[in-house]
Amino acid sequence: MPKIDLSAIPQTNTTGYPAPYAQTVAGRHVRRLASATGLSDFGVSQVVLKPGAWSSQRHWHEGEDEFLVLVAGAAVLVDDGGRMPLVPGDCAAFPKGDGNGHHVVNESDGDAVFVVVGAITNGTAHYPDINMIYDGGTGRYLRGDRTESA
Amino acid sequence: MPKIDLSAIPQTNTTGYPAPYAQTVAGRHVRRLASATGLSDFGVSQVVLKPGAWSSQRHWHEGEDEFLVLVAGAAVLVDDGGRMPLVPGDCAAFPKGDGNGHHVVNESDGDAVFVVVGAITNGTAHYPDINMIYDGGTGRYLRGDRTESA
Repeated sequence: MPKIDLSAIPQTNTTGYPAPYAQTVAGRHVRRLASATGLSDFGVSQVVLKPGAWSSQRHWHEGEDEFLVLVAGAAVLVDDGGRMPLVPGDCAAFPKGDGNGHHVVNESDGDAVFVVVGAITNGTAHYPDINMIYDGGTGRYLRGDRTESA
Repeated sequence: MPKIDLSAIPQTNTTGYPAPYAQTVAGRHVRRLASATGLSDFGVSQVVLKPGAWSSQRHWHEGEDEFLVLVAGAAVLVDDGGRMPLVPGDCAAFPKGDGNGHHVVNESDGDAVFVVVGAITNGTAHYPDINMIYDGGTGRYLRGDRTESA
C-alpha cells in the first residue's frame, strides 16, 4: 500500500557530527522514507524535532537541491537573511550551491515535524558558522580549509 | 529567502486530459515550486484540492518515483488496494513502475492540501481505469493500446 505506516519505520537520531556539534541535533529523530518504500530518484525523510532541537548545523550543499515542508508544530528557519517562523504547510527551498547556510530550529515546547527532500546520498556540504565541511568524497567532516578533521 | 511565499506563486488548474476526464481535476490548483525557487534535481508542487476534486485520474508512472505528504485538510488515497484516509502528516510513496494506479480525492467539505515530489518532466504514465496512456515522448494522451488519441 502506498500510504506509509510511519510507525513501522524506525527513527534514528544518530549523527556523524564531531563533538561538540552533535549535541544540538540529539533531539532530531529521522525516518528515512525513500529507502523504506523503494524510492530511488530522490531522498525523503520525515524529521521530528523535539523542543530545543536543531535540524542540523547551519549548512548549504554544493551539489544537491533541498526542500522541506513543515507538517506539524512550529519551527524557525534560520539563514543568512535572518529568522523566519514556519507553521504547518510552510515550505522552503534550498537550491544547490546557493552559499546560504540554513537550518530549522524548534524553539517551541512541542514537537515540530517536517518532511525534507534531497539527494539519496549526501554530497559535500559547508557549515559556515563552525568552519566545517562535510566532504562527500570521503564521508569525513573537515575544518573549513580541509586541512584536518573537524 | 529560502522560505517560499506561496501566495506569490500562481496557481494553475489546467490539465492536458481530454474530455471527459478533465472535469474531475478542475478543482485541483497547483503551485509549481521547483521552477519558482530554482530547484532542478526534482519537481515539487503544492496542490490544493477543492471539495470533490481529484489529484489526477488514477495512474502510475513508468519511470519516475512519486511521493506526497498531506499538509492540511482530509483526503482519501485510492489505489489497487482500496481506499485509505489521509490526515495531515500522512505520507505516501509510489515507486516507479509499480503498476499500482493511484490518486488522491477530496471527499470532505473543505480544502485538502498536499505537497507532491516527482520528476521535473513527466514521463509515460498509465491510467488503468480509463484505458489511457500519457506518452512522455510525444506529450500526447493515447488509448491504452497506443493506436489513437484518447
